[in-house]
Amino acid sequence: MSDSGRFITLEGIDGSGKSTQARHLADRLRAEGFDVVLTREPGGSPGAEEIRALVLEGDPDRWSAETEILLFTAARRDHLERTIRPALDAGKVVICDRFVDSTRMYQGLSRGDLRAQVDALHKLMIGIEADLTLLFDMEPGLGHARAKARNTAEERFEDFGADLQARMRQGFLDLAREFPDRFRVLDAGRGIETVAGDVARVVLEHLR
Amino acid sequence: MSDSGRFITLEGIDGSGKSTQARHLADRLRAEGFDVVLTREPGGSPGAEEIRALVLEGDPDRWSAETEILLFTAARRDHLERTIRPALDAGKVVICDRFVDSTRMYQGLSRGDLRAQVDALHKLMIGIEADLTLLFDMEPGLGHARAKARNTAEERFEDFGADLQARMRQGFLDLAREFPDRFRVLDAGRGIETVAGDVARVVLEHLR
Repeated sequence: MSDSGRFITLEGIDGSGKSTQARHLADRLRAEGFDVVLTREPGGSPGAEEIRALVLEGDPDRWSAETEILLFTAARRDHLERTIRPALDAGKVVICDRFVDSTRMYQGLSRGDLRAQVDALHKLMIGIEADLTLLFDMEPGLGHARAKARNTAEERFEDFGADLQARMRQGFLDLAREFPDRFRVLDAGRGIETVAGDVARVVLEHLR
Repeated sequence: MSDSGRFITLEGIDGSGKSTQARHLADRLRAEGFDVVLTREPGGSPGAEEIRALVLEGDPDRWSAETEILLFTAARRDHLERTIRPALDAGKVVICDRFVDSTRMYQGLSRGDLRAQVDALHKLMIGIEADLTLLFDMEPGLGHARAKARNTAEERFEDFGADLQARMRQGFLDLAREFPDRFRVLDAGRGIETVAGDVARVVLEHLR
């Protein structure tokens, strides 16, 4: 919970429409008169973007899961200090495409002890949780097709099979049940405008 | 404490002769028939060297102390997994030029809460302490002059005044008192050959 601004995070599997919806939401909130900062993870500040590149590019076995968690937490700390915290302190609405829930889900899916490490590191070095988290939930097949249609060098986290996509979907739904106070689950399998309408309604209710 | 090999770390202020003595020690131990891995921090594995470059180059205010601790711990985790742990498991003697004591000293010197963060991160993500730590203690003025005579792009941690050098010397001596079982303090203000003789004697006593 932030003291003055509001911290809204968007989560969901690749191709679930998070980034598109984040832009729509930012435009809508600005039209409503809110001061908005739109950001993303991993990245979101110049230093964090450099760490992002170090983590996401290159051989998939380049880093162990533990080193990766440390690098993601370092990037998140920089992002928090340089982008998120100053905006919240200035009373702004921060919209962040992925935050610690993505790290919780991806790492926890492979090994339970990693989820515990993510939580311990987050508590020690980051501290903040979102005020509101929108989960873009959809059939994994559709998300996978959307993600593969993009062409990017950052393929490490997108080159997954359908079974793993289904497990990731369930992993996010489990997180929503674990943090019911801040999570809102949205059906992201509908048209962009329909989903955007839902997003705006949920967020504006939260902000007012 | 390692299970099979021995983990020896060298600590001290810049210009105290650690790197030179590490090489002499490695040569001597090899001549005595030991299987030796000589390494250093930050760095010591390809991934850790990349993180080292990210931390040490560029603007001194590029990273906050907290982000820096996370990056150093990420580099250390990689170094541990790829270089130190495999060597120890194979029964080798690992000689490491700087390890977590440097992070403890440099961060703890500026703020007590950072020292606590270093310790918590180390316990959570690294775990191992050296079997033997050699502290190269000397008058700060001499060390400073030696360090300035070198010409390197990695100036962030070397561009300190005499007062800070004196505080760093004391910081290392405090660590030696905190961990008396593994620390040995050596007078590094003497000639290289004299110090090397001391180092070899202390280490060979430890190994036998």
